[in-house]
Amino acid sequence: SPIPGFKALDVASVLDYLEEKPDLAQLLGPRSSPTSWKAREVGDGNLNFVYIVEGPDGGLVVKQALPFLRLVGDDWPLGQQRIGYEAKALETENRYCPEHTPTLHLYDPRMALIVMQYLAPPHVILRLGLTEGHIYPQLADQVSRFLAQTLFHTSLIHLNSEQFRAQQANFLGNIELIRLTEQVIFSEPYFDASNNWHTSPHLDDLAKSFQTDEKIKAAISRLKALFMERGQAMLQADFHTGSLMVTEQTMFAIDAEFAFYGPMAFDVGKIIANLLLAYFASDGHEAAAGQSRQKQRTWLLQAVVEIWEKFESRFLDLWNAEGHGDLYPDSLFGPTAPAGSKSLKRAQQDFMKELFEDCLGMAAAVMTRRIIGIAHIQDFKLIESDDHRAPCERRALELAKSLLLGAPGRSIQQVVTAAESLRKEVPVMNGHA
Amino acid sequence: SPIPGFKALDVASVLDYLEEKPDLAQLLGPRSSPTSWKAREVGDGNLNFVYIVEGPDGGLVVKQALPFLRLVGDDWPLGQQRIGYEAKALETENRYCPEHTPTLHLYDPRMALIVMQYLAPPHVILRLGLTEGHIYPQLADQVSRFLAQTLFHTSLIHLNSEQFRAQQANFLGNIELIRLTEQVIFSEPYFDASNNWHTSPHLDDLAKSFQTDEKIKAAISRLKALFMERGQAMLQADFHTGSLMVTEQTMFAIDAEFAFYGPMAFDVGKIIANLLLAYFASDGHEAAAGQSRQKQRTWLLQAVVEIWEKFESRFLDLWNAEGHGDLYPDSLFGPTAPAGSKSLKRAQQDFMKELFEDCLGMAAAVMTRRIIGIAHIQDFKLIESDDHRAPCERRALELAKSLLLGAPGRSIQQVVTAAESLRKEVPVMNGHA
Ligand SMILES: Nc1ncnc2c1ncn2[C@@H]1O[C@H](COP(=O)(O)OP(=O)(O)O)[C@@H](O)[C@H]1O
Ligand SMILES: Nc1ncnc2c1ncn2[C@@H]1O[C@H](COP(=O)(O)OP(=O)(O)O)[C@@H](O)[C@H]1O
Ligand SMILES: [Mg+2]
Ligand SMILES: [Mg+2]
Ligand SMILES: [Mg+2]
Ligand SMILES: [Mg+2]
Ligand SMILES: [Mg+2]
Repeated sequence: SPIPGFKALDVASVLDYLEEKPDLAQLLGPRSSPTSWKAREVGDGNLNFVYIVEGPDGGLVVKQALPFLRLVGDDWPLGQQRIGYEAKALETENRYCPEHTPTLHLYDPRMALIVMQYLAPPHVILRLGLTEGHIYPQLADQVSRFLAQTLFHTSLIHLNSEQFRAQQANFLGNIELIRLTEQVIFSEPYFDASNNWHTSPHLDDLAKSFQTDEKIKAAISRLKALFMERGQAMLQADFHTGSLMVTEQTMFAIDAEFAFYGPMAFDVGKIIANLLLAYFASDGHEAAAGQSRQKQRTWLLQAVVEIWEKFESRFLDLWNAEGHGDLYPDSLFGPTAPAGSKSLKRAQQDFMKELFEDCLGMAAAVMTRRIIGIAHIQDFKLIESDDHRAPCERRALELAKSLLLGAPGRSIQQVVTAAESLRKEVPVMNGHA
Repeated sequence: SPIPGFKALDVASVLDYLEEKPDLAQLLGPRSSPTSWKAREVGDGNLNFVYIVEGPDGGLVVKQALPFLRLVGDDWPLGQQRIGYEAKALETENRYCPEHTPTLHLYDPRMALIVMQYLAPPHVILRLGLTEGHIYPQLADQVSRFLAQTLFHTSLIHLNSEQFRAQQANFLGNIELIRLTEQVIFSEPYFDASNNWHTSPHLDDLAKSFQTDEKIKAAISRLKALFMERGQAMLQADFHTGSLMVTEQTMFAIDAEFAFYGPMAFDVGKIIANLLLAYFASDGHEAAAGQSRQKQRTWLLQAVVEIWEKFESRFLDLWNAEGHGDLYPDSLFGPTAPAGSKSLKRAQQDFMKELFEDCLGMAAAVMTRRIIGIAHIQDFKLIESDDHRAPCERRALELAKSLLLGAPGRSIQQVVTAAESLRKEVPVMNGHA
């Protein structure tokens, strides 16, 4: 049931709503005629309504949560509190990485909406840009900065346990969206869920293997436990290429409504997975595009490597400079502690080794669910022919499987080399066994 | 600052307090004369005041939290909410293991007290019984039941994620006591904290090695992260031999004020550590006792093995019977899922292997802090001569160190064998190097 006093906006009423907020109205400029402010609804997501409002002096975005899942409608009720978690997350992200976070102008709990900075064209959703064949030379650098800044500063390496638990408590109620993730990423692809679908019969054999292999079930359960039990940092928690708006120079993370305290590996792994999916999809777009995408593919794999490597080095730089939290405390690891620096180095190595393995596991889970779970992605959906799409999906799914089952100790370079090999080994026109 | 309306009780006012609660007064029986009800204060703990009240028909225990740490006094303020967490934990423990949990009669938040079942003599604090040389043949069976019942039923293997997070949220505010644990177990022994002390000079070399070895610092940090980040089940969280009241036939877990959602390994490891400490202490008591304690030692090591083995089998039995939570869901692991039973078996093995290693780590941390941290235990303190105590402590500390640094893959039997060897190798009268 909706919040008392709540009213769903539309392209007309959103203008009146903003007019009543002088601070916001001012950003749009004078509403001197009935047409000087204009709104359009652009929500391409599954969950919410998003209005872009433009006036003579600028634009604003209003995102409103209705008490149901937009994709499905009234039949799938969904708490409107989710927008409050998005507001809290945006606040935190703005604190630690304003460069890559839209400014939050207002959170209105009664109306279940937020008003934020409008990311005007040429800003585009990264996923769309990728399917169109674009390259974003700054992306890996920007993504790694956002991840390092937000994950480090919300973790116990930076915070003391009191601050940390207070923050964690803020997100503990975001249960509906957390459960959605648990369900669609960590459960459904691994059993015969009615929501699942895949390119059939091409992938039947491989899809089935995810539901019958006890090693895979053990691996996904370990990752699920990590996701459900380990509150390590505040996650954006939906950090895929559909949640990034980019130009060649800029990158912003939007859509933080899934935010909660979880394992860092989930955010890092999810974006890596989505870039790998884009890599495998590119062959399917090549024919339609009428030109080679080899350059984009080369860049995508470089970006995967660069995201991990720069994330790692940025995170460690932050740790060395601001690691005064309750984990790895200065009393044991500071420069004046006996063997302090040596111990810190070792602890950091252990930490990064474990995090990297978990990232690969999370990446595998995310790739898998996009191919055999409920929610597929434009990268593949835009490849119209099953026969063209299936081999791309198969390559991605084979990589996911090997990451899920793989022995520890791989490097990020080995992962992208494996992706390249799979692209060569699995023939494009002979996808099904 | 104390709760508004709060009043510290004493042995007189506690009687009047109970008289005003007819349900409780009835359990004591008629207060027909001024002396028919009697109260005494028995709080031997560091934190709270505990009154035993007896009347003609029975007894009750009143535990009250004052707004400071009892051991230190007004100078160390401590939130009275801790008694609320104890009440919540007792409620949960009573739901899943009433057999080993005192009945909770009342929780009065304004007065920061609980009223619970009186565990009359011959009930005694287990630690005391152990220092006196007693054997408790049922203990391992009882302890393993309590651990399996409470840890399993509050975990995601049994609960769905909504129930789980609601429960977890209940304990997230127990921050002061959680921080105390973080500090005294996972930090102070590993640096030159002013609180630390040890039998000196006997243990100087060994104590120092805990503060200078980077492998030890890395190991304790991994355990600390586990403790701080992994909300896996509701822990009693202070599950040592001083929190158990026993007879030869019965066992009750008291003093749950540290309860929160943490890693199962902490509860299991803590009790194992305390029995190992009792084992090493026994040599020091032997001379004073004037009789051999070999029988008790044999039993203590058997109990350690039995606790783990019975915990494991009970937990797995519960899992097989009631494992309908969101982790390891029936859809993947149920009997009708493809390869369901086989997959479950494998997942359970992985789970127990990991849990066991973590238990050994936690046990090591607990043993260490009792010998070189702030709070030592009666088991050792009652050994008056430094020269007698030091070798006992050294053996325990050597075991702790080897567990902390040890390669995975050991069995519980190997751990107790190592304890036995250390007892033989480190001579009693030549403790210091
Ligand atoms: N700050 C913004 N500036 C410009 N466009 C935005 C902004 N926020 C969202 N959008 C557009 O609205 C779409 C849906 O927003 P999103 O936050 O992803 O909603 P949902 O939670 O429903 O997925 C985005 O894909 C993007 O096209
Ligand atoms: N239910 C009980 N029945 C009998 N004695 C009890 C009971 N609860 C506590 N005690 C006695 O009071 C002492 C202190 O109680 P405890 O709960 O451990 O307090 P603290 O939190 O201050 O350590 C125990 O060691 C035990 O001797
Ligand atoms: Mg979105
Ligand atoms: Mg969204
Ligand atoms: Mg530090
Ligand atoms: Mg106590
Ligand atoms: Mg206590």
